Amino acid sequence: MISLEELQLAARNHGMPLEALRHEITPLGLHYLLTHFDIPVVDGAAWRLVVDGLVEQPLELSLDDLRARETVTMPVTMECAGNGRAHLEPHVVSQPWITEAIGTAEWTGVPVAALLAEAGVKGGEVVFTGLDRGVEGGVVQDYARSLSLADCDGALLAYGVNGEPLPPQHGFPLRLLVPGWYGMTSVKWLGRITVVDEPFRGYQMITGYRIKRDEDDPGTPITRIEPRSLMAPPGIPDFMTRRRFLPAGPVRLEGRAWSGWGAISRVEVGVDGVWADAQVGEPPGPAAWVPWWLEWDATEGEHELSCRATDATGRSQPDAPPWNVGGYANNAIQRLSVTVSTD
Amino acid sequence: MISLEELQLAARNHGMPLEALRHEITPLGLHYLLTHFDIPVVDGAAWRLVVDGLVEQPLELSLDDLRARETVTMPVTMECAGNGRAHLEPHVVSQPWITEAIGTAEWTGVPVAALLAEAGVKGGEVVFTGLDRGVEGGVVQDYARSLSLADCDGALLAYGVNGEPLPPQHGFPLRLLVPGWYGMTSVKWLGRITVVDEPFRGYQMITGYRIKRDEDDPGTPITRIEPRSLMAPPGIPDFMTRRRFLPAGPVRLEGRAWSGWGAISRVEVGVDGVWADAQVGEPPGPAAWVPWWLEWDATEGEHELSCRATDATGRSQPDAPPWNVGGYANNAIQRLSVTVSTD
Repeated sequence: MISLEELQLAARNHGMPLEALRHEITPLGLHYLLTHFDIPVVDGAAWRLVVDGLVEQPLELSLDDLRARETVTMPVTMECAGNGRAHLEPHVVSQPWITEAIGTAEWTGVPVAALLAEAGVKGGEVVFTGLDRGVEGGVVQDYARSLSLADCDGALLAYGVNGEPLPPQHGFPLRLLVPGWYGMTSVKWLGRITVVDEPFRGYQMITGYRIKRDEDDPGTPITRIEPRSLMAPPGIPDFMTRRRFLPAGPVRLEGRAWSGWGAISRVEVGVDGVWADAQVGEPPGPAAWVPWWLEWDATEGEHELSCRATDATGRSQPDAPPWNVGGYANNAIQRLSVTVSTD
Repeated sequence: MISLEELQLAARNHGMPLEALRHEITPLGLHYLLTHFDIPVVDGAAWRLVVDGLVEQPLELSLDDLRARETVTMPVTMECAGNGRAHLEPHVVSQPWITEAIGTAEWTGVPVAALLAEAGVKGGEVVFTGLDRGVEGGVVQDYARSLSLADCDGALLAYGVNGEPLPPQHGFPLRLLVPGWYGMTSVKWLGRITVVDEPFRGYQMITGYRIKRDEDDPGTPITRIEPRSLMAPPGIPDFMTRRRFLPAGPVRLEGRAWSGWGAISRVEVGVDGVWADAQVGEPPGPAAWVPWWLEWDATEGEHELSCRATDATGRSQPDAPPWNVGGYANNAIQRLSVTVSTD
């Protein structure tokens, strides 16, 4: 059961309805969204990105300044670190994601490394601070996260998504985009990039987004996305229960799979607990999900479908949800109930 | 408390975060979305709109055929008939909206009346059938709703929103748009328009979307949007509780108000139960919300803010939620808790 407080979060934030797994690039408006505080209204003309701290040459850049630089466009699969939280027992109170906090968009922007090189970096850690401000755990804060210099490689300062300027909810005018990492790292509404020489101890690094066994455990930081596979629900749904109904006969089971640790090497599909290898296609880019499919001859009756991804590092999906205090990184396999009928 | 079944709906469907009330036209991706079944994947090139039934000349039109016709663009405020449901007691099980199932977009398309005139109508009721299929209340169905010929006046067959083609979730390639009516009438993913000469008895007319006192009551149909005013929450939020914090001193309280029955004639703002008239601005169009604002000198302490709209027909917002079986049309006044501090 979910409290009214959690419902307030579920009503604001939103997942990608799983039938949208049929789109290789998630259409705008269907990509998942998790907003810690409020979505700021930013005046793009007045906005500037400040790059400061331990740099040889501090920068202050307009959106036009950024657009004038060499850019990269890449499809990236993102996932919220809290995806799967609602399945955890004991219950963890926060944004109650089931399995739909995902999406793949084509992001356009300037490589972080290029901008840091331009500024001349003299420190080992980079703090990214957003314009979104609020209270969490009793601490008033601007949303901020840091990355080591090495982890900035491959990251993007994105001002475009799916060929459009960023909409407000995705971080207009500029956001960080760190391929392969859970979404909390990809700071939206960027205002400042500050180079420092010691670990950044902001709330979202030290208190939030850590895997803790219990409240006394300082925990370990959450970084890359654990492997996951999800199936586009076959057949038609019941409005209220979301149970699926389909006719007996051949049906293609299909979905997508991804991991932030390595390429997907295998996807298996379970029908009533019997597993078979699915076919796995090509991803639209190195940091994006792969399509998979399996032809199934659906027989009359009730069935449980599931799917499981394994990546090149050998990481896979557990049967049971891995519990932790914050309810993060639950990549347990998806289970889907379907009713097959002949008529 | 909300069940996991209701949470499944809350995770799929999504509201407009109330800070987005600051936008006169809701950016794409922030407008509320209620999808009964699945969002269909439609091939726009192969798709055709069929106009049939009691017409002199049945039509079969491509998207290009529709684009070639005379079009209208208009800002329209939409609201889900279930908005406010989560506040009802006794609890009503369905999509658990709090107050955020709203949005205002600029829709572009062909007037329904023009197309009906072209076909030559010989019946009094028009049935709009979508391509979305599923089960509701045990009934397998294509989503379908009807309007009287008179109520089709002013309605649009929209293929564009905010200057873009419809995204999948808003009804690509074509949707009905009925200004002033709750959203269930504005059938998405339109496939067929059928003219008939007796009342249409589809599930979404006879069973769903009626105001019923109890399960035995046949009820009365839901039509136009009841007046509502909502405030953009001032200050900054707590992530989990969404409680608001702001400094003592002058602050502008602002929001928007609308009614499907008539123009907004008055908006009042309550501070700890003391009401004052807000200033009311101009709407971006006759079927869209009006902005309102009131300067408040916030004093230290805990306060309850609220707002109440009245329209030209004299309809206003009740203090307590009006209960009915389906949990529809709850336009009770919004209440917002804020903590004001000096520091």
